[in-house]
Amino acid sequence: MEPVRLRREKVVLDTSLFVNPEVRGDFGNTPTEAVEGFLFLAAQIPTLEFYMPSSIFKELLNFIEPDKISGDLFTILHQKSPRKHELTCPAFLLYELIEDIRERVNKGLRVAEKAVRGVSKGDEKEVIQSLRKNYRDALREGIIDSKEDVDLMLLAMELNALLVTVDYGVIEWAEKLGIRWLLPSKFKDYLLSSIKRVKEQITVGAEGGS
Amino acid sequence: MEPVRLRREKVVLDTSLFVNPEVRGDFGNTPTEAVEGFLFLAAQIPTLEFYMPSSIFKELLNFIEPDKISGDLFTILHQKSPRKHELTCPAFLLYELIEDIRERVNKGLRVAEKAVRGVSKGDEKEVIQSLRKNYRDALREGIIDSKEDVDLMLLAMELNALLVTVDYGVIEWAEKLGIRWLLPSKFKDYLLSSIKRVKEQITVGAEGGS
Repeated sequence: MEPVRLRREKVVLDTSLFVNPEVRGDFGNTPTEAVEGFLFLAAQIPTLEFYMPSSIFKELLNFIEPDKISGDLFTILHQKSPRKHELTCPAFLLYELIEDIRERVNKGLRVAEKAVRGVSKGDEKEVIQSLRKNYRDALREGIIDSKEDVDLMLLAMELNALLVTVDYGVIEWAEKLGIRWLLPSKFKDYLLSSIKRVKEQITVGAEGGS
Repeated sequence: MEPVRLRREKVVLDTSLFVNPEVRGDFGNTPTEAVEGFLFLAAQIPTLEFYMPSSIFKELLNFIEPDKISGDLFTILHQKSPRKHELTCPAFLLYELIEDIRERVNKGLRVAEKAVRGVSKGDEKEVIQSLRKNYRDALREGIIDSKEDVDLMLLAMELNALLVTVDYGVIEWAEKLGIRWLLPSKFKDYLLSSIKRVKEQITVGAEGGS
């Protein structure tokens, strides 16, 4: 009997997996260790292909010591930009993006007005500091707001890949576009389960072949 | 000899053509008169089809007295939304939109900070009023920032039409997408020239047939 072939699957990774202290713990104590920890598991799963947008990989390099990481980094974690001049996205998403931005812009103005009204009651310097924080929160939270976010989303779309990210703005868009996603906190379990399945298949394959 | 056939052409209209006082002058003194003036010319050009997105038409109805306008309004100016769930747009535009928004968001914050710093020197009420104006200018000028803007752009794309608008945000995107556009200030000349060409063709046609 021919063994059931495991489906090959592509996975797109965000840096948060290795960089964000709350997230990377599953793989290592430092970003460099986390990358090594990931590569150790990933090397055991020939059915999975791992990708990272080049822009995101560049960010990652600011956090890790590449000299301490084995060459597996380049054979296992592929760096690739999305084909942004060939890909298209559904036009109705433009409406959602524009509506979302409108709401945020209005929210930003209310934050600014509140700050102006607060000056008489507080220290100007403190008011400006809290203005900056509140404004950024109002305008940036839960939105795709950078080139890197778009890279992640489009690469996952292009490769029909599973997207591993903790960024809720990106996740919201992944939902709109039908891109599968996984939180980094579940990613180690995902890898361990994949290793188990690969081993099962090897056993089944060996039995089938005997 | 068979006469050369005039190319049929589609034209998508923004409301500014009829509503904006600086623009509508070519067609009439009031929005209602401007619409009538346009219809009078348009009725003489069987080679042109005129469209307006439904959302924009709804805006127009707030400015005109439909009872005073002939039924030509509905046979000559077609109301139609773009097929937003079928159309796609090139993904690289997302990058441009996101970058543009980032810049504006940062500009908005600088405007807000300046307002906070201005409170000690001016009246709070005045500061807030000028904050509102400056903030809106910083965040909205030259950007597609409404559902109606997207409607205009997508309908022109869908119909491969000439887009007549004065909105620089929409024009900028028309340029990115390869949509032809014309300023309303040139539109009356465009219609008059079209009428001339239609008449020439009729003459040529009649001669050709004799």
